[in-house]
Amino acid sequence: MTSAVITNLPASVLAPTALVPDRLVSDRLASNPLSAAPLSSSTFSSEPVRSVPCRGKVWLIGAGPGDPDLLTVRAVKTLATCTVWLVDDLVGPGVLELAAPGTRIVRVGKRGGCKSTPQPFILRLMLRYARQGETVARVKGGDAFIFGRGGEEWAWLAERGVQVDAVAGLTAGLAIGAQLGLPITHRQVARGVALVTAHTVDETGAGSQPYWRALAQSGLTVVCYMGMSDPTRLARVLMASGFRADLPVAVVQRATCADQRHLTTTVARMAEAIATHGMGSPAVIVLGDAVSHAMAMAQDVLADARLVTTG
Amino acid sequence: MTSAVITNLPASVLAPTALVPDRLVSDRLASNPLSAAPLSSSTFSSEPVRSVPCRGKVWLIGAGPGDPDLLTVRAVKTLATCTVWLVDDLVGPGVLELAAPGTRIVRVGKRGGCKSTPQPFILRLMLRYARQGETVARVKGGDAFIFGRGGEEWAWLAERGVQVDAVAGLTAGLAIGAQLGLPITHRQVARGVALVTAHTVDETGAGSQPYWRALAQSGLTVVCYMGMSDPTRLARVLMASGFRADLPVAVVQRATCADQRHLTTTVARMAEAIATHGMGSPAVIVLGDAVSHAMAMAQDVLADARLVTTG
Repeated sequence: MTSAVITNLPASVLAPTALVPDRLVSDRLASNPLSAAPLSSSTFSSEPVRSVPCRGKVWLIGAGPGDPDLLTVRAVKTLATCTVWLVDDLVGPGVLELAAPGTRIVRVGKRGGCKSTPQPFILRLMLRYARQGETVARVKGGDAFIFGRGGEEWAWLAERGVQVDAVAGLTAGLAIGAQLGLPITHRQVARGVALVTAHTVDETGAGSQPYWRALAQSGLTVVCYMGMSDPTRLARVLMASGFRADLPVAVVQRATCADQRHLTTTVARMAEAIATHGMGSPAVIVLGDAVSHAMAMAQDVLADARLVTTG
Repeated sequence: MTSAVITNLPASVLAPTALVPDRLVSDRLASNPLSAAPLSSSTFSSEPVRSVPCRGKVWLIGAGPGDPDLLTVRAVKTLATCTVWLVDDLVGPGVLELAAPGTRIVRVGKRGGCKSTPQPFILRLMLRYARQGETVARVKGGDAFIFGRGGEEWAWLAERGVQVDAVAGLTAGLAIGAQLGLPITHRQVARGVALVTAHTVDETGAGSQPYWRALAQSGLTVVCYMGMSDPTRLARVLMASGFRADLPVAVVQRATCADQRHLTTTVARMAEAIATHGMGSPAVIVLGDAVSHAMAMAQDVLADARLVTTG
């Protein structure tokens, strides 16, 4: 481990510090329009937001799927220049080893002791550090612009006069291709790929069926993020929307990390398979005939105890 | 430049060499079932394919969108261990600088003087080098498993007893997010992203409309690869399939390369805009309201002469 200073949020949110005055957290956040309103570059257009000079900068950096060797060269180079890191939970632990000595690392993940570090708090923390002249890395799992709110954060900061730049990262849902020898697109069985979340599965599933029906008809491999909270309902909605019950499914937990686990199953059996093998978040669920062409799975199934295949 | 030995194919295909006997090229390829039949792991199941021992190995390596700093750390490390590189055209020139001295680099791209290096020839070249004990890098633009035939090549080689492994790469269609500050997914306007090719646009456009209609209904940002050969027809099919005429479009040519060019337009105007500004392949076409949220475009439009914005 480096000699970087690591702070765990939201614990630190509760303690007044020079950097994070209590007032910012308890008073201003409570009445902050950000907590209710959607964030966009126009939300605050009436604010005199550029009145404070800003010497620092914010980098939105995609840290890839977990394995630190899957960062881009540019991400590694850029991280080394950043004096403050705000780090999401999905960032692999090995990535933190890349921090230069003295780097202030603040964990702002949403899976910590509390349910979530409020997004408005993270925004204001970035703004504050940048105005102090720090070079801030907002370090995100995967890529900041794919289910990462990178666009919202960039817009909010730019409105306030903060210079923002970004470095792309590998998103987990595509990194599994090389990881499992899984042809995400395949001339015979998958003419493209869709990356989606399961958040559009509503309580009954009825409201989201047109959306899933379009995906079922698209002929694409579908990679579903954030689908592990209720696989039973997800499978029901998928089948009601036209996904074949016997369509191959791969569930990949902690893709590319040392403790990666994955199984192959079908839409009809996926909920039971996930429960039987104790699979959980973070994971991606891959739906499509391309799954049955995965080469590394076929080669490794008997050799690798971490790999689980279920019918 | 390194002291690597660089061979341009298909020129070398025409000249007999110790590595590539003429017979292999002219006789065996002509009658090769690969040139007609689709490739899959089962295509050659009746061949005694594992009879030749193989000491080498093939790595399928995604070289990312063009900028060598956007390779993954693992790709850089792995490339340094490979003694022979078979390199696609879409691989950025800077990537070749990473080759260790003495590396044999063979260009097998499809955009060279001839129309194409035949895929069966590339397969047999990999097999031959691997059986000679070489560590072969099949270096592809983007990622080998996203419009890269990585799955087919892995299956074909594995059938012949060749050890295969892979390293993921950033695909150009997603790297543009960080490049342009473009939120590829966005909570308000894009609940996911689809990566597709325009190859499914048939002559009349009629046959491919159900596919594009599903994409239009999906609410996803759609990133279209290989769409520059006939933008007029593509736009017509898109609009006939339910894409709004005023839907924002970004066209990004040679994404992340030093000579990147991009413009923003709409579906209705994209063909004219592409023609007016002389945009060509390789490029990705991004369709969706998320395009109008691109931050780096908005910031740079007056400062960067390479950036073209058209209405």
